[in-house]
Amino acid sequence: MIVQLHLDSPPAVELTPEESTLIKKLEGLQCRVTPVTTQRTRYLVLDTPKDLDIRKIGHLEGVRDVHRVTAPYKLVSREWRVAPSSVDLGDGVSFEEGALTLAAGPCSIEDEDQIDQVIEHLQSVGVSLMRGGVYKPRTSPYSFRGVGLEGLRMWHEKAQAAGIKIITEVLATEQIEALHDYVDMFQVGARNAQNFTLLAELGKVDKPVLLKRGMSTTLDEFLHAAEYVFSSGNEKLVLCERGIRTFERAYRNTLDINAVPALKERTHLPVIVDPSHAIGVRRWVPAVALAAVAAGCDGLILEVAPVPERAFSDGQQTLNFEESKRLIEKIRKLREVIEP
Amino acid sequence: MIVQLHLDSPPAVELTPEESTLIKKLEGLQCRVTPVTTQRTRYLVLDTPKDLDIRKIGHLEGVRDVHRVTAPYKLVSREWRVAPSSVDLGDGVSFEEGALTLAAGPCSIEDEDQIDQVIEHLQSVGVSLMRGGVYKPRTSPYSFRGVGLEGLRMWHEKAQAAGIKIITEVLATEQIEALHDYVDMFQVGARNAQNFTLLAELGKVDKPVLLKRGMSTTLDEFLHAAEYVFSSGNEKLVLCERGIRTFERAYRNTLDINAVPALKERTHLPVIVDPSHAIGVRRWVPAVALAAVAAGCDGLILEVAPVPERAFSDGQQTLNFEESKRLIEKIRKLREVIEP
Amino acid sequence: MIVQLHLDSPPAVELTPEESTLIKKLEGLQCRVTPVTTQRTRYLVLDTPKDLDIRKIGHLEGVRDVHRVTAPYKLVSREWRVAPSSVDLGDGVSFEEGALTLAAGPCSIEDEDQIDQVIEHLQSVGVSLMRGGVYKPRTSPYSFRGVGLEGLRMWHEKAQAAGIKIITEVLATEQIEALHDYVDMFQVGARNAQNFTLLAELGKVDKPVLLKRGMSTTLDEFLHAAEYVFSSGNEKLVLCERGIRTFERAYRNTLDINAVPALKERTHLPVIVDPSHAIGVRRWVPAVALAAVAAGCDGLILEVAPVPERAFSDGQQTLNFEESKRLIEKIRKLREVIEP
Amino acid sequence: MIVQLHLDSPPAVELTPEESTLIKKLEGLQCRVTPVTTQRTRYLVLDTPKDLDIRKIGHLEGVRDVHRVTAPYKLVSREWRVAPSSVDLGDGVSFEEGALTLAAGPCSIEDEDQIDQVIEHLQSVGVSLMRGGVYKPRTSPYSFRGVGLEGLRMWHEKAQAAGIKIITEVLATEQIEALHDYVDMFQVGARNAQNFTLLAELGKVDKPVLLKRGMSTTLDEFLHAAEYVFSSGNEKLVLCERGIRTFERAYRNTLDINAVPALKERTHLPVIVDPSHAIGVRRWVPAVALAAVAAGCDGLILEVAPVPERAFSDGQQTLNFEESKRLIEKIRKLREVIEP
Repeated sequence: MIVQLHLDSPPAVELTPEESTLIKKLEGLQCRVTPVTTQRTRYLVLDTPKDLDIRKIGHLEGVRDVHRVTAPYKLVSREWRVAPSSVDLGDGVSFEEGALTLAAGPCSIEDEDQIDQVIEHLQSVGVSLMRGGVYKPRTSPYSFRGVGLEGLRMWHEKAQAAGIKIITEVLATEQIEALHDYVDMFQVGARNAQNFTLLAELGKVDKPVLLKRGMSTTLDEFLHAAEYVFSSGNEKLVLCERGIRTFERAYRNTLDINAVPALKERTHLPVIVDPSHAIGVRRWVPAVALAAVAAGCDGLILEVAPVPERAFSDGQQTLNFEESKRLIEKIRKLREVIEP
Repeated sequence: MIVQLHLDSPPAVELTPEESTLIKKLEGLQCRVTPVTTQRTRYLVLDTPKDLDIRKIGHLEGVRDVHRVTAPYKLVSREWRVAPSSVDLGDGVSFEEGALTLAAGPCSIEDEDQIDQVIEHLQSVGVSLMRGGVYKPRTSPYSFRGVGLEGLRMWHEKAQAAGIKIITEVLATEQIEALHDYVDMFQVGARNAQNFTLLAELGKVDKPVLLKRGMSTTLDEFLHAAEYVFSSGNEKLVLCERGIRTFERAYRNTLDINAVPALKERTHLPVIVDPSHAIGVRRWVPAVALAAVAAGCDGLILEVAPVPERAFSDGQQTLNFEESKRLIEKIRKLREVIEP
Repeated sequence: MIVQLHLDSPPAVELTPEESTLIKKLEGLQCRVTPVTTQRTRYLVLDTPKDLDIRKIGHLEGVRDVHRVTAPYKLVSREWRVAPSSVDLGDGVSFEEGALTLAAGPCSIEDEDQIDQVIEHLQSVGVSLMRGGVYKPRTSPYSFRGVGLEGLRMWHEKAQAAGIKIITEVLATEQIEALHDYVDMFQVGARNAQNFTLLAELGKVDKPVLLKRGMSTTLDEFLHAAEYVFSSGNEKLVLCERGIRTFERAYRNTLDINAVPALKERTHLPVIVDPSHAIGVRRWVPAVALAAVAAGCDGLILEVAPVPERAFSDGQQTLNFEESKRLIEKIRKLREVIEP
Repeated sequence: MIVQLHLDSPPAVELTPEESTLIKKLEGLQCRVTPVTTQRTRYLVLDTPKDLDIRKIGHLEGVRDVHRVTAPYKLVSREWRVAPSSVDLGDGVSFEEGALTLAAGPCSIEDEDQIDQVIEHLQSVGVSLMRGGVYKPRTSPYSFRGVGLEGLRMWHEKAQAAGIKIITEVLATEQIEALHDYVDMFQVGARNAQNFTLLAELGKVDKPVLLKRGMSTTLDEFLHAAEYVFSSGNEKLVLCERGIRTFERAYRNTLDINAVPALKERTHLPVIVDPSHAIGVRRWVPAVALAAVAAGCDGLILEVAPVPERAFSDGQQTLNFEESKRLIEKIRKLREVIEP
């Protein structure tokens, strides 16, 4: 159960005496109460006895609204918040139902020239969000691990000048502070999908978070991971399906297209798809990107680079500018006939 | 390697003296030769030494064409036959690239009334191929197992009168003969995807076959299964992706949307999708049906029934007529903007 | 629910008037009744209303015993028959709890010399059951498909002379009759694990059946498959875990060792393990064979051949005689310290 | 390729002039060189041209030994170090081939009384390594998350007094320093199996690390994860198979018993098994624990608690003392007949 409180202003971090009194009353009704303070407001998440009459709670002082949520995740559930949430990055860039927000860019940020070319391409196709890795999680410790903070600063400056927002992966809590001022959205990668320490820490950050599904994370676990961030304070969350691990090895991963309608039904958060990782083969990316749009996702994140054949990482699944342009045109044409 | 022979007329089942001579010459070049006689023509499938000069074969008498095929499956491979194959059911109903052929109908055929209603619905939405089970493979021996041959005869008569073709699952070689005159297309179900005896027997049949992918069949194994039917004589084959088994249990199966572009690249055979089994939840079927079309499949097979809530089997994934109509309209709108 | 009838002699195939009366009374209690006639006796399998008082059934005339079985499979369930079943092949060869029955032999039967050598080896290590394929299910139609019936006859003759029982795979119902007189036990392979027509047909056979788990068959589905055979008349069933398909490709399959205690708890049927297919790498077979014994299985089926490097199929997972001998010695030593 | 250097004393962190000269020469031979400095010595890991004559390297000054390693992971590979590594925790507790090291204890450390009882039990069965969580990675943010540092300190004091070593999970790099003085071995859990930041940080720690396989980590990825820790400086590593995620849901995970012989062949590091998580059902734990020993693992880590039914977490897979005692006796009996 979720209790929304009567709050006129953002909540003080400490509980007020009124709130403490309310919690005691709820505990008197045999509820286990977890106060959740987000950057927006305060909620009380309750574990209630099965036969509790919900009206008893609704009538308590300080309570604005009460919602019964049967799912084990609470605040990210659509049982609670029926209207879709939108996640705003500023300057008109946002994820929301009905829009189809595109992010594109290279797997790894490499150098100034690469950045310039990608920015120019994004402007030419009307995409305002650029992806790129500066710290790369690599299976082998001997692989290229990213240009790091210095590269990020340069990228950020150029992107900002061009009116483009940027999103990059954060690998560890220690990196959050250093990255903070240079990113518009933090990405949590598949390998950290259940790194609960990192998730909780991102709950304290005032920037949006893109949460990728883990390689073998169920939808339930995925939504629980989102609950970690949300219940730690950050409501600006976007979920991303990026392929799961199955017995089939004809592709890098298996895009779980079923997850799109299933997640959209269960959560009010925007749901996007990463077709590049989900299939891992460049010439097949457009087919599954279009499929994801047809299935009703709220956005896509695409790997695009000037010369994929020479990219430091993941070139085999990266589109060149010509392919990217053709795909984006098709996506927009398709979008017109799919009402959300 | 595949050798196509100079044949003016359909091949005699016995090898001609010229063919025998050719085979001996090929064996002299260290090739292992498997003669394949389909209802259309004769091929020689060769397992050749690595360094064989292909021109040596091309110059032999009786050889029309030679193709190097590196894939382990041969006759279904697109390395051999680059142009897409079409599969004709007669009276203008066919599967072919560029068309989008729809089949729809109940999981199980139940009674006259159900058949009449479905046929009327199909006519109203312009669908000319009706699916339905008369012998049902059921996990439990205590479940409903289908109306059998008598039901099929009635169904066939009504469908024929309405100008509708029918497709039904064949469970065993013993059934082929009895079913033969009353079906327009045989279906091999997921559980028989590697029942090689059944596959080989269907190679001798003069009606098209729809081959469903097994629950944990790789694309390679799927194409090998098709090779069984093809190399046993029947070239009229359509492949159907219907969801694979993964760790995720939020849905009945996981639609492997990646398989659509990957199969279309590897084989010249038409590739269709069964969204009903692939997700198993009625309200999510439209999303993944549209996704399959956007990904470039050549057709769909949908579960549709008058009152899904009362269906003998699989009602939870079956659309009612209103839902079916709405979906088919959307599919056609979508199809217009997706060029094949 | 299962009702056992008072029967002094094997059941007539037709229901007796007393049985028909009993069934009518049960139907009067809102039970759905499926009469099951095995080669041993007759049972009534009931689908009962939830609140039915079991004593009402117990008191009916002709009823010897009533068992409530909550599992969806019934006659193979240990809820019904608590004592372990043993499966007798004659001449002292049997599968039963507390014994550890070994079967060994080549993947494919090849020629007289191979058979002689394997028989001699089996005698030297005290193994009385020989495995071997004469009809091979092969992924590719161009692979070796077995020596067929003639080879089987020769093998059978030699084995019988040596006091060795034989087990071979049956691929299709059409083969059952031809194979019948030359085998001591039929094997159903992983690819036919849900070939319900074949399973039902084997229920009518008076020889034991070894049922292999399918590559992606759940334990529930596996037990349902066994229920098909049992409820079609044949109680002489042995289950075999042989590895499942997972994301891991470092081995051919993944031995599901968990299945051993889980199956032993759920069914009264003997449970054995095929370590050769389950790992698929010869030098690792002994480790997992010993693991299976330690986990409490009732037997093993091993691939053993004179010169595995020259075997027609599966040589990479086949032990030579020296390896087989060493492993069998270890198995027996291990068995002594593991009480069943 | 791995080059071992002539070093009489532990390496200075900075490269010596001789080492820098050597590296330049290697680069002159077109090798990419990664110097690896562990707490024990220094290695050079080389990415070499395919046709490089290994003797050219062997003759360079300062080179003690050169090993060609074809695996993509290098320092953990058995191609390089053929002899098994042992990992010493001090006071006679160690993991090594031929011994069978047992660790046991509750999922979560709860209170003083629980600790006392477990320690007494471990002493009575001769186990010197106690496991227990003080920071718990939980799927839901609303679940119990551990007693934290204070609980750890108390536990450490009691264990040390009893001559028992302790192992606990570390969830994040920020925790390493705080935990350091109170643990004898750090554990990395399945959800952090590819948290490369954490792995690299544990490479700098002077205490042994137990690395659990991730739920869907391949053996290759698992060994790469170990390479992260090793190449960051810490050679004291133990690998733990704990069940993988498959389609089967009859148990919590599927113990991948195949991994035991496969890992033992590929790496010189000790390999142990966690049967409690690998099956997740208390009454089935003994069967798979014995299987793991029979398969040749170097140790086990077991969940044991005074009253599993009342445990804060994972009680359903935890043995009580009586069950633990019986199992450990069987394990030891079994171990005697299995030579390593």
